[in-house]
Amino acid sequence: MSDSTPTSAQATGRKPVLAVVGATGAVGTVMLGILSTREDVWGEIRLVASARSAGKKLRVRGEDVEVQALAPEVFDGVDVAMFDVPDEVSLEWGPVAAARGAVVVDNSGAFRMDPDVPLVVPEVNPSAIRNRPRGIISNPNCTTLTMMDALGALHRQWGLTELVVASYQAASGAGQPGIDRLHAELEAVSGDATLGTRPGDVRTAVAERLGDEPSPFPAPLALNVVPWAGSLKDDGWSSEELKVRAESRKILGIPDLKVSATCVRVPVVTTHSLAVHATFQKPIKVEAARQALVEAPSVVVLDDPANGDFPTPADVVGSDPTWVGRIRQALDFPHTLDLFVCGDNLRKGAALNTAQIAELVAAELSGR
Amino acid sequence: MSDSTPTSAQATGRKPVLAVVGATGAVGTVMLGILSTREDVWGEIRLVASARSAGKKLRVRGEDVEVQALAPEVFDGVDVAMFDVPDEVSLEWGPVAAARGAVVVDNSGAFRMDPDVPLVVPEVNPSAIRNRPRGIISNPNCTTLTMMDALGALHRQWGLTELVVASYQAASGAGQPGIDRLHAELEAVSGDATLGTRPGDVRTAVAERLGDEPSPFPAPLALNVVPWAGSLKDDGWSSEELKVRAESRKILGIPDLKVSATCVRVPVVTTHSLAVHATFQKPIKVEAARQALVEAPSVVVLDDPANGDFPTPADVVGSDPTWVGRIRQALDFPHTLDLFVCGDNLRKGAALNTAQIAELVAAELSGR
Repeated sequence: MSDSTPTSAQATGRKPVLAVVGATGAVGTVMLGILSTREDVWGEIRLVASARSAGKKLRVRGEDVEVQALAPEVFDGVDVAMFDVPDEVSLEWGPVAAARGAVVVDNSGAFRMDPDVPLVVPEVNPSAIRNRPRGIISNPNCTTLTMMDALGALHRQWGLTELVVASYQAASGAGQPGIDRLHAELEAVSGDATLGTRPGDVRTAVAERLGDEPSPFPAPLALNVVPWAGSLKDDGWSSEELKVRAESRKILGIPDLKVSATCVRVPVVTTHSLAVHATFQKPIKVEAARQALVEAPSVVVLDDPANGDFPTPADVVGSDPTWVGRIRQALDFPHTLDLFVCGDNLRKGAALNTAQIAELVAAELSGR
Repeated sequence: MSDSTPTSAQATGRKPVLAVVGATGAVGTVMLGILSTREDVWGEIRLVASARSAGKKLRVRGEDVEVQALAPEVFDGVDVAMFDVPDEVSLEWGPVAAARGAVVVDNSGAFRMDPDVPLVVPEVNPSAIRNRPRGIISNPNCTTLTMMDALGALHRQWGLTELVVASYQAASGAGQPGIDRLHAELEAVSGDATLGTRPGDVRTAVAERLGDEPSPFPAPLALNVVPWAGSLKDDGWSSEELKVRAESRKILGIPDLKVSATCVRVPVVTTHSLAVHATFQKPIKVEAARQALVEAPSVVVLDDPANGDFPTPADVVGSDPTWVGRIRQALDFPHTLDLFVCGDNLRKGAALNTAQIAELVAAELSGR
């Protein structure tokens, strides 16, 4: 582990060196913006991507930095390496970076359920970062992450026992290809007000305009919702739905938490929303729950429907907090609340949470 | 009641006379198409709308029919009067039509919870039409209706006890103004691929292009989802969410059914979708549930995610059945299934179900 090597930031008193792997993707782009605006705890920031992007210059902290091709040597002298790359790239290169002394903060699904890898939301389980025998810390899936800080705040007081969740997931959950595809489809259906009225007419219009261009979605997303995200797992469940279950249990430390999730993609660019039906051990009232959420530092309560105040993705995109509204006492289920939660899936759902974890590691390395 | 009057269809052997009130609206337009394609059980079909639309000619059963202004006399000689108008218009005019001898089939919320008015889904509770002391039969809310025939089929065998529902509701649930608004907003945001990335940018773009034009939605619907439908009721619940609870109980005949619903509008023109978490008295298995749904005459099961087969609104819009997919055994909840259901909210969710009820009444009046 890096904090025992003689060249560590703690040993030398220098600011830790950061590598951003996957700097050119949708999350990477948001990450460079976040690194340019948060308190600057980093020494050198090294940008890394596939060989295809090497040599490109990207702006971070007001300076142009040249992107380096992923190779073992780029991790030499690195204290913390953030990875936002596909699972298989993380699986191969995360351990390489860790072996060279970097603490890896990984945003793929590769290591999240590894018992030797902590899965961390800094507002919920920050101390978990310390126990990282593989030198790897995982960042949760963006859908799970959208509700974790809010549910964590409620769980601390009332003890969460059951979750029934339906998601409204944005196109950018599938990265830049998802964003590009949604825009291309919206252009393909624009200007024809008859579309969306006959079976398959949207599918035909999209196929006519976009041809065989591959889509990250298994059905048109424009003028549609698609009840699928991820890959097929046992018994008809999608990987995304099973991640919500397994990751919520691990982050909150509730191994027997009951979870059913239905994950649905919607034609929104960025910001995931969730309809959450949450049951607790202890009796919970709306007003006390609202107070606990107001006091949670990363949560904003926007809940005054009489004045049109509830969170929507288009209003909260680009912001850091988790937004909670529509807080209702379930009428027929004891100890249960129904809520609507929105969070920017590229920020708190990905880059911001990764940056927060990395900053916790930086503080540890610096002996703070 | 009309079936005891001397001029009734039964007494005379003639085909019953139908009035379509609200013939020019979004549901009315679909209704005229449905009346032109289903088995023709009607004698005269009289089209009625507000004075503003009177004199307009609309095509039904291949003929142009002049729209008459709503007035007491238009119901003279009418056997069945379908209403698709706002609550307050139904409240005033439904009893007027009933007093003139018509059986009223009303698609507003005005009478649905009246104990003297049956609330009918022909596949679920057809015999309820017979007990109509006010001469009025109500058609359910479109969101509730989207899942009723599928849940009715499961309830008959396994006994439904709990429902947790999240909706993905189409713009046309708010009628033609909803459809027009969605198209206008999509035009307003089209061509600018930077929209949907900064807080409120979609709201600003829509306001700049559409100005103060009133919207039936409390937030932009393009590139967004809006967790609100209907009006504000007690304790933060929306009228739409409470309708799902009260109407499901009445239609299925389960007064203590536990229900939590979160109703959310999505940028889809027509066809509501629902993520349904349904719990039953008896142990239920996916394969048996699938078989019961396959055998339900108005339900189509489309559930093979390995081949990309699940219902989406853009694929099923314009069709009559209720489409069910993503049928999964809940992993942590006993006797519970998770499903995804889609149905055209203007057809089975409104006009088709109304037509089916009216046909049941016509058969009764004709002594069949």
